[in-house]
Amino acid sequence: MEKIGFIGTGVMGSSMIRHLLNAGYAVHVYNRTKSRADAVIAEGAKWCDTPGDVTAQSDIVITMVGYPTDVEETYFGETGIFSEADDHHILVDMTTSTPTLAEKIYAFGKERGIRALDAPVSGGDKGARNGTLTTMVGGDEEAFDAAKEVLSVFSSKVMLQGPAGSGQHTKMANQIMVAGTMTGMTELLVYSKAAGLDLERVIEQVGSGSAANWSLTNYAPRILKEDYSAGFFVKHFVKDLKIALDEADKMGIDLPATRQAALLYEQLAGKGFADDGTQALVKLWWGE
Amino acid sequence: MEKIGFIGTGVMGSSMIRHLLNAGYAVHVYNRTKSRADAVIAEGAKWCDTPGDVTAQSDIVITMVGYPTDVEETYFGETGIFSEADDHHILVDMTTSTPTLAEKIYAFGKERGIRALDAPVSGGDKGARNGTLTTMVGGDEEAFDAAKEVLSVFSSKVMLQGPAGSGQHTKMANQIMVAGTMTGMTELLVYSKAAGLDLERVIEQVGSGSAANWSLTNYAPRILKEDYSAGFFVKHFVKDLKIALDEADKMGIDLPATRQAALLYEQLAGKGFADDGTQALVKLWWGE
Repeated sequence: MEKIGFIGTGVMGSSMIRHLLNAGYAVHVYNRTKSRADAVIAEGAKWCDTPGDVTAQSDIVITMVGYPTDVEETYFGETGIFSEADDHHILVDMTTSTPTLAEKIYAFGKERGIRALDAPVSGGDKGARNGTLTTMVGGDEEAFDAAKEVLSVFSSKVMLQGPAGSGQHTKMANQIMVAGTMTGMTELLVYSKAAGLDLERVIEQVGSGSAANWSLTNYAPRILKEDYSAGFFVKHFVKDLKIALDEADKMGIDLPATRQAALLYEQLAGKGFADDGTQALVKLWWGE
Repeated sequence: MEKIGFIGTGVMGSSMIRHLLNAGYAVHVYNRTKSRADAVIAEGAKWCDTPGDVTAQSDIVITMVGYPTDVEETYFGETGIFSEADDHHILVDMTTSTPTLAEKIYAFGKERGIRALDAPVSGGDKGARNGTLTTMVGGDEEAFDAAKEVLSVFSSKVMLQGPAGSGQHTKMANQIMVAGTMTGMTELLVYSKAAGLDLERVIEQVGSGSAANWSLTNYAPRILKEDYSAGFFVKHFVKDLKIALDEADKMGIDLPATRQAALLYEQLAGKGFADDGTQALVKLWWGE
């Protein structure tokens, strides 16, 4: 049974680590803020002082940190993963990060015989808790095959999407789609409330036809209960949409609807709601 | 068993009439272009020369025409529905039209003891064919109760959403949501193709997680087959979004994502794709 290293014990990471421990894996962990690893340590994970130390104790090293800059530091920092990695390791970055950085990690590893995958997820806190994440993987088939069983411990759908960077690109495609369902769902509620409709009835009926979507089913009821707690943070969605639009720019394509969504979420973050869940977008209308 | 009048024998209307005939109802029909009623006449519907004549032969009169101006003419024209309607009739406009016109028809009827409902649908040609339309109703409860059985002949979900105009408002809410799923789905495909991803794999995986929605499941595969035939016409979506934005303006609310979607669909119609299906939006990127 492979020994697992896990770097990043936030909301997502902690749930994923729990599934690994329950499946019988030994898990060594590191987190920038140590106190946030206490819960999983109490459940059997072993603490290490640096990402390099985690790597030295593991066969498969998973990273689930915040921003691309954190990923960069975690892999390439002085006591980072690459300071200890060798050709028996598989490194799996599950942070939503840039395709460019995924390719850089892959290439740096390849030169040294170290296998690397980019494997961001969708499904949010709930998917992590239930072990039903959607895991989108980029990299070599051999590394994918070797890591798949471990990733499946907390995922219900793991797919190799293509070469290094393809996992991140697929996640960007996912976020572009979600930008559409979140803005549509929000404006639906704004319109319906202004028109004096019964929002629960509207959600029930609209959610059952050709407008049906996951955001409407899962987030609209939370909004009616004024529950804006984060399944997925506004600040992280802002990051994701910025990456998607930067990548689109590089590829010379314009995505006006995604651009509009990014603008709205940036406004929302700017108004102090960066730590709310993405369903808080409606506060741009109802928050005043 | 009520005698049904049905005005408008287009793609949607013809399928709905067929379901009524199969359920054993007598159906009198009128259509501006008579030849487009030939098919349902051959199946047992009876032709009338004017909307007024249809009304004189019927208990419940259903209208499913193109634009609000057509609705106006059908109800208020010289040989229109109101020229023959009396207090035993129930008038049901199933055209997607303006809430304002729905209220006008309701009020005009009420003064004369004539019951009227607005009852636009979602589900498109496929829903009409399969008898699984989602029918959103505005008007009085008594009239709704009296018409519900007939509407259920071709609908899988019929709901009273509120007073006159509420059916149309709910349909606008539905279209606002669809604007989000259609633009999101389109930009997802545009991005994924530019990034060199395998579109079928992306659709399979993204469609199973938190980005899941009806448009992605139903339209994306058609796009991959380059099938741009109309389940729902671009020109009708342009009309619907214009109504939604006009209503939003009247209510003093701004819907930037819906506005962006309307702009894209107007561009598409302007480029000669008005008679394509709404999934043709991707032609703004791939059509050149």
